[in-house]
Amino acid sequence: MKEIQLAEQFLKEQWQCIISDLVEYLKFPTVSALEDYKEQMERCATWLEEHFQKIGLTTKIVRTKGNPLVLATTRKDFSEVSKRKPHFLIYGHYDVQPPDPLDEWDHPPFEPHLTNKAIYARGASDNKGQHYIYIKAIETSTKLMGELPYDLTFFIEGEEEIGSPHLLPAIKRLVNQLRCDLIIASDTSTPVPGLPAITYALRGVASLEVVFYGSNRDLHSGIFGGCIDNPAMALCKTIAKLRDEKGRITIPGFYDNVRPISSYERALLRKLPQSKAALKKLLGVPRLFGEEGYSIWEQRSARPTIEINGLSSGYQGQGVKTIIPAKAIAKLSMRIVPDQKPDEIVKKTMKFIKNSAPKTVHVEMIPHHGAEPYYIDPQSPWIVKSIKVIEKLFTRKPCLLREGGSIPIIPQLSKTLNAPVLLLGLASPTDNAHSPNEKFDLLMLKRGIILVTCLLASFCSEG
Amino acid sequence: MKEIQLAEQFLKEQWQCIISDLVEYLKFPTVSALEDYKEQMERCATWLEEHFQKIGLTTKIVRTKGNPLVLATTRKDFSEVSKRKPHFLIYGHYDVQPPDPLDEWDHPPFEPHLTNKAIYARGASDNKGQHYIYIKAIETSTKLMGELPYDLTFFIEGEEEIGSPHLLPAIKRLVNQLRCDLIIASDTSTPVPGLPAITYALRGVASLEVVFYGSNRDLHSGIFGGCIDNPAMALCKTIAKLRDEKGRITIPGFYDNVRPISSYERALLRKLPQSKAALKKLLGVPRLFGEEGYSIWEQRSARPTIEINGLSSGYQGQGVKTIIPAKAIAKLSMRIVPDQKPDEIVKKTMKFIKNSAPKTVHVEMIPHHGAEPYYIDPQSPWIVKSIKVIEKLFTRKPCLLREGGSIPIIPQLSKTLNAPVLLLGLASPTDNAHSPNEKFDLLMLKRGIILVTCLLASFCSEG
Repeated sequence: MKEIQLAEQFLKEQWQCIISDLVEYLKFPTVSALEDYKEQMERCATWLEEHFQKIGLTTKIVRTKGNPLVLATTRKDFSEVSKRKPHFLIYGHYDVQPPDPLDEWDHPPFEPHLTNKAIYARGASDNKGQHYIYIKAIETSTKLMGELPYDLTFFIEGEEEIGSPHLLPAIKRLVNQLRCDLIIASDTSTPVPGLPAITYALRGVASLEVVFYGSNRDLHSGIFGGCIDNPAMALCKTIAKLRDEKGRITIPGFYDNVRPISSYERALLRKLPQSKAALKKLLGVPRLFGEEGYSIWEQRSARPTIEINGLSSGYQGQGVKTIIPAKAIAKLSMRIVPDQKPDEIVKKTMKFIKNSAPKTVHVEMIPHHGAEPYYIDPQSPWIVKSIKVIEKLFTRKPCLLREGGSIPIIPQLSKTLNAPVLLLGLASPTDNAHSPNEKFDLLMLKRGIILVTCLLASFCSEG
Repeated sequence: MKEIQLAEQFLKEQWQCIISDLVEYLKFPTVSALEDYKEQMERCATWLEEHFQKIGLTTKIVRTKGNPLVLATTRKDFSEVSKRKPHFLIYGHYDVQPPDPLDEWDHPPFEPHLTNKAIYARGASDNKGQHYIYIKAIETSTKLMGELPYDLTFFIEGEEEIGSPHLLPAIKRLVNQLRCDLIIASDTSTPVPGLPAITYALRGVASLEVVFYGSNRDLHSGIFGGCIDNPAMALCKTIAKLRDEKGRITIPGFYDNVRPISSYERALLRKLPQSKAALKKLLGVPRLFGEEGYSIWEQRSARPTIEINGLSSGYQGQGVKTIIPAKAIAKLSMRIVPDQKPDEIVKKTMKFIKNSAPKTVHVEMIPHHGAEPYYIDPQSPWIVKSIKVIEKLFTRKPCLLREGGSIPIIPQLSKTLNAPVLLLGLASPTDNAHSPNEKFDLLMLKRGIILVTCLLASFCSEG
């Protein structure tokens, strides 16, 4: 591929500039979870728009009820639709996680620190560094190849770390301008540092708050203990029934729409690096526990779960207060897999809890946010091509994996735009996403730019 | 009984003075739970000592590691031991519950408010008003009868509302001066307002904090959910096993030392006023629940219980945080009955939890304070005589009852001094002990003084 040599040459010449622009980008403290950073979000969006303009793209800042969405396209204008060329949508987010705990950072999180190997800053890998690769790849491609064999639009949002709550209406409004053949996102990670990975499935999530009410106030356990039920006990007994001792969820119909893991996939997942002993040590648990009949990777990514995220009842201070609490609360969430639907799962869970709760308590249930799972056939042509390109550049086949977490915007984008999503993980687990001393490896930055340059070109070539 | 007329005459003459002294006593904000009131505790103890001196008693303030204990005796000095006369110890406490919520009081809690029927103040019934009756009864008796046919010692402590934590060493040190034939305490209440009641048993209490540890930190439920256990789920499952659906505690050996309720007692308890519908309404529960085969009074006072006093795990804020919590905590307490021992019960509970907990969690258990149950034979001569005197004065037999709550100091006093305790309840449930607008009925104050005057005399007469 001639793109490799061209890109390498270009990178050599531009490297200092690429780094100094990334440093500028990382300096914006774009913490979407905190109201105080609103102005910084705006500034960063403006910087990003100007950066896109500098490399020759047509841009647009889209106002939402939350932080602005930055769009940039290789087309003359956003409503242009080419029938000749494929259109790719590059998803990324310029917002970052809060940097706390600050005292665990070796350098301030918004003053990027460079070593020979990596750039350290909040957002370095999640997600500024990862989508910056695509920006530089497009700059490379346009400068080297003149007219591109594809159209490409950047879709860089500012609320991913808070669940993209205001994005769907914008996508729906812009659907004609965003319609594409493939969405590409690098917001996942690779289990093998230095080797990109392809995530072909994400779990979804469904969540539910359960409140059991007993008496109209906390009661003296001496005076009233014995003649009324304890809502915390009633809650424990009911919640305890949600999962059996073998790790199976007991809610009727819970597994109805779970797509079985194919033997092809099981073989893929078996190839992933995993050590039970290392995982046990990393998490500090006395022993691992999961659904019987499935490997750790399958349990963590391809099977649904139910978790208690929080419990709250009665007295939680120091020492003893001998009361019968008036109420008890459990926060529950389920990770779901294709083809489970969050609403259906919440409905089934609510029905089960309602039927299992004793008649001694009033039950209130509040469904919270959900997200759909995402799945793309690991044997789809987009993935097959990507594997080839990665293998050529990195001399090894990439890992193909499912991830256990959820990225709500991915299935939303895919569904609304009716396009598949290629999740190309470039960050390594040692990049400390969401943790102090977040970083991104410079080698991956460089090789990522070459990879994306080649990948986009290859999607437009035969064979 | 000549005492009745004499006492009535005396009360008529002294009534204004009796009331104004009680008002003074109630003005001290003796809140033992709050450090800020330390000085007021001292002042109140001094006032009380001086009041005892005024009516001719020998006094002593005993220093403890907490609030002072006020002793006063009809004997010349505390080490005097009469072989002729019986010696009674009157237990009471000058400390009170915190007055919050202040805005629910019609008058300030430490500015006693008098109506025709009652005196309103924090401590009016619990316990200043109730033991003040004994002080006035002794004043009456000494003024009217000259030399008393009994010795009597007041034992008025200042830490009952915080569990009398510093008292036992003082009792042990003073055992020779306190040794007596009968301890009398009016720190319980009567289910029939205006008619004194005799409580012949109290439940004890045992308490235990249980912590289940899972991973070394809260984990992302997407990334790790499926391959490790959830300590909150493990806790629910384990705690759920402590009690069955019929209200029976399932801990092996839990009921081993439970003294069965005699048919005599069951008949006594059946006589107590109780309405299931009224109780259900009062507590606002959808339905009552208790151990099968026992009446409500039996469930609430004569049978042991286990309660979850508090639950705590993971995220308890607004909305959703999809974590697997690192730990989960349950605060448990058991109400125990004769002849269960708090230590044994805690040991059995710990063993059961240890054996029931899954191997996927680390279990930590912290026993907290306990208290022994108390029991005196309801057919004992002290009670039989008391019934007679009450019936004579009030024209009705008093209720004989067990109480479900615990007064740790009662079994401690009884055991250390090797003497039975007569628990004579004078406060009515409408006196709002521990609640805003606490009061004590003036009629009960007057009739209580006459009752105690007669009762003490009757204990020294034949038949």
